[in-house]
Amino acid sequence: MRMYDLIMKKRNNFEHSKEEIRYIIEKFTKGEIPDYQMSAWLMSVYFNGMTKEETLELTNAMADSGDRLDLSKINGVKVDKHSTGGVGDKTTFIVAPILASLGIPMAKMSGRGLGHTGGTIDKLEAIKGFNVSISEDAFIYNVNNIKLSLVGQTGNLAPADKKIYALRDVTATVDSLPLIASSIMSKKLAAGADVIVLDVKCGSGAFMKDEDSAKELAKTMVEIGNGAGRKTYGIITDMNEPLGCKVGNALEVYEAVEVLKLKDLDNVDFGIKRLLEVSLTLASYMYMGAKKYEGEISNEENPSGKAISYEEARNLCEEAVTSGRALDKFAEFVSAQGGDSDMIYNPELLPKAKYIVPVYVSEEGYIASCKTSEVGMVSLILGGGRETKESIIDLAVGIDIRKHIGEYVKKDEVFAYIHADDESVIKEAEKRLLGAYEISYEKVEPEKIIKFVSE
Amino acid sequence: MRMYDLIMKKRNNFEHSKEEIRYIIEKFTKGEIPDYQMSAWLMSVYFNGMTKEETLELTNAMADSGDRLDLSKINGVKVDKHSTGGVGDKTTFIVAPILASLGIPMAKMSGRGLGHTGGTIDKLEAIKGFNVSISEDAFIYNVNNIKLSLVGQTGNLAPADKKIYALRDVTATVDSLPLIASSIMSKKLAAGADVIVLDVKCGSGAFMKDEDSAKELAKTMVEIGNGAGRKTYGIITDMNEPLGCKVGNALEVYEAVEVLKLKDLDNVDFGIKRLLEVSLTLASYMYMGAKKYEGEISNEENPSGKAISYEEARNLCEEAVTSGRALDKFAEFVSAQGGDSDMIYNPELLPKAKYIVPVYVSEEGYIASCKTSEVGMVSLILGGGRETKESIIDLAVGIDIRKHIGEYVKKDEVFAYIHADDESVIKEAEKRLLGAYEISYEKVEPEKIIKFVSE
Repeated sequence: MRMYDLIMKKRNNFEHSKEEIRYIIEKFTKGEIPDYQMSAWLMSVYFNGMTKEETLELTNAMADSGDRLDLSKINGVKVDKHSTGGVGDKTTFIVAPILASLGIPMAKMSGRGLGHTGGTIDKLEAIKGFNVSISEDAFIYNVNNIKLSLVGQTGNLAPADKKIYALRDVTATVDSLPLIASSIMSKKLAAGADVIVLDVKCGSGAFMKDEDSAKELAKTMVEIGNGAGRKTYGIITDMNEPLGCKVGNALEVYEAVEVLKLKDLDNVDFGIKRLLEVSLTLASYMYMGAKKYEGEISNEENPSGKAISYEEARNLCEEAVTSGRALDKFAEFVSAQGGDSDMIYNPELLPKAKYIVPVYVSEEGYIASCKTSEVGMVSLILGGGRETKESIIDLAVGIDIRKHIGEYVKKDEVFAYIHADDESVIKEAEKRLLGAYEISYEKVEPEKIIKFVSE
Repeated sequence: MRMYDLIMKKRNNFEHSKEEIRYIIEKFTKGEIPDYQMSAWLMSVYFNGMTKEETLELTNAMADSGDRLDLSKINGVKVDKHSTGGVGDKTTFIVAPILASLGIPMAKMSGRGLGHTGGTIDKLEAIKGFNVSISEDAFIYNVNNIKLSLVGQTGNLAPADKKIYALRDVTATVDSLPLIASSIMSKKLAAGADVIVLDVKCGSGAFMKDEDSAKELAKTMVEIGNGAGRKTYGIITDMNEPLGCKVGNALEVYEAVEVLKLKDLDNVDFGIKRLLEVSLTLASYMYMGAKKYEGEISNEENPSGKAISYEEARNLCEEAVTSGRALDKFAEFVSAQGGDSDMIYNPELLPKAKYIVPVYVSEEGYIASCKTSEVGMVSLILGGGRETKESIIDLAVGIDIRKHIGEYVKKDEVFAYIHADDESVIKEAEKRLLGAYEISYEKVEPEKIIKFVSE
């Protein structure tokens, strides 16, 4: 087999065999295929795409390129969630405690933020004393004991993906559906969960700007996951404005706690209604998936499984919130990893910025649209995000948006608060924040928050 | 300007500006754009093509990447010819003496052969004493004095093309029309001729297998040449069997001499008729182009120019052959470069192979088709070509094909002779030679030898 012939084959739109896909991934990971041949192949994939079979094999080959996490020491069905990245996405802090409180083990590895999207691990570090790099033994112990642990990515997961992504990033071959899907799913497969729920963001703050391409991505990833024997759901959610009100590390933990404290879910503030809806939907599919998976593997020796409906799962998840059990679970989890759980019960204790500056609109009207990634950039300007991997971030700063698409904002009403530690950047942050929003005289309906479920 | 954005632009099918094309070529030649980005860009060009303006600028930028030959010391209009490569193509040895004998200066640089196609420079070395690397001064002196000199490629012509071609060769991006056209034309422009006649081969022994793609290539190259102010013609000629009868270095010089010795052009052996036709067509366009160019640049101070018709040019070229003046010119040229001109007047003196083996067909019938590049491979097996750049070639060996497409061949008639020095390869050569031809019970008409002229 020669890489030259394989480039030619993909270029001429023929389908690769499994052996050919394996050859490309293995040899490239070992450094036996030069970058210039790989990038020519990647560009051919960009133009000609990949069949379902090719994409699945590509994902498997990348998942096999490094370690696969061994979750066998964890009791029960392992459930994972992945978000394709947005602004203000703090659903993990809501979803994980809900599921853990319902007895579903959540052994989660997360990343740090880069560019306009924040990282779960960074956000958790806003909690005093919280340790994101506990040992593997402690991680397993916590999951078995309290059903929830969350650490930074460790181990050598899918190194082929890392190497290929670095090349795609400099050769304009990032936005190819099979390459995006296989990149995400290779890491998920290597991370070992039995049930995977994918939150595919769609809109101005997401990688996928329109619903059709988000649907296609969701469908492709679900095919890969199910093809690899994992129960997989793809939920397409709106990212045409930040999710919830708050953007910034401590601020997002604060808002997650606000949601976990809700007692009456029918009577929820407009600002966090959509955040609640996404969280409950994800949690419900995760729970339902876990039960379905248990059902499929249950037998006489292991009779635990019983499939339930989405509605049943949803009721349980809602109850986990309104009963306060999910909040308690969050606090328990924080304590178990050395964090100050007082900060959960009383989020006012979380780090606070020096300046909290109200922002007003210059002309009143309905909020019509938002360049969501611009809001992420404002957080970055304030010091809350990373421009490069080496940046040190300010956990206290961020934005608290008080008005959302479809709402009317008056001139004398606070549109948003900027939380800043550095006075000199406030003006620019304010200008860019206002510039990110469009205001209209006519009422605009916000996009549906849950757009589609692919399973 | 960033290469990443330029890859993205071409990938998304937008047109590059002149500055962008220059940036890519200059930075890549300097080693400031890595191979992996260049190959991604080349693959995007493969898929999305290039506009006429982009292709012209690409060609100019590559021509500017190294030396441009200074032909100003040569008197008169400089004429060049280029063949896209075939098997048995010895037209240069016929065309160049015809034109030189008509007073048109022929300052020609040629290459060596690689793979199944032979090289003009190799073939000339079959003549005893012939020096293909005379000094630049001697080259210029000879062209001014006897109107003809032919040397191996010297100088640093279009190094960008060399570097890009090496990358295309390993990334499956060779067969892209704008890349092929600009590669050929960048060297032609750098070589400095005023009039360029392109022999675009088409068929089983050529890079372009079908007439449509050959036409498109010819049209593109003619646009580039004319766009750069050179009078350019593209002649599409048939390469569905070797041109003429003989394939091999000394053998091809021999056959060229046979053509130059013809006295009656209406009564020509079937085997060399097509070779004569291609040679006269190329020579006529070159002569006509030279006169047209002279006409365009003539003024009161330089009143030499007078455009003539193709028919007038053709008559002059035919006369150059039948009068024997072209043969004398060839002999004069050989002497001037240290070669033994007796070998021209008496080609029996050219190097001869040890074994000359007749080949017979196993079933008689009409010659229906030929895998021409296979015939080139037979010559390579015999030792007459190069497998790698380092191979040493045997100038005496080759094939002499006695029957051509459309002719009937009987079992007891010699179909071809194999000229070999190494007895051990004869059987394989014979087998592959016969395997390259198809014989049919029904008469087959050969393809028209001159298929199209693009100007």
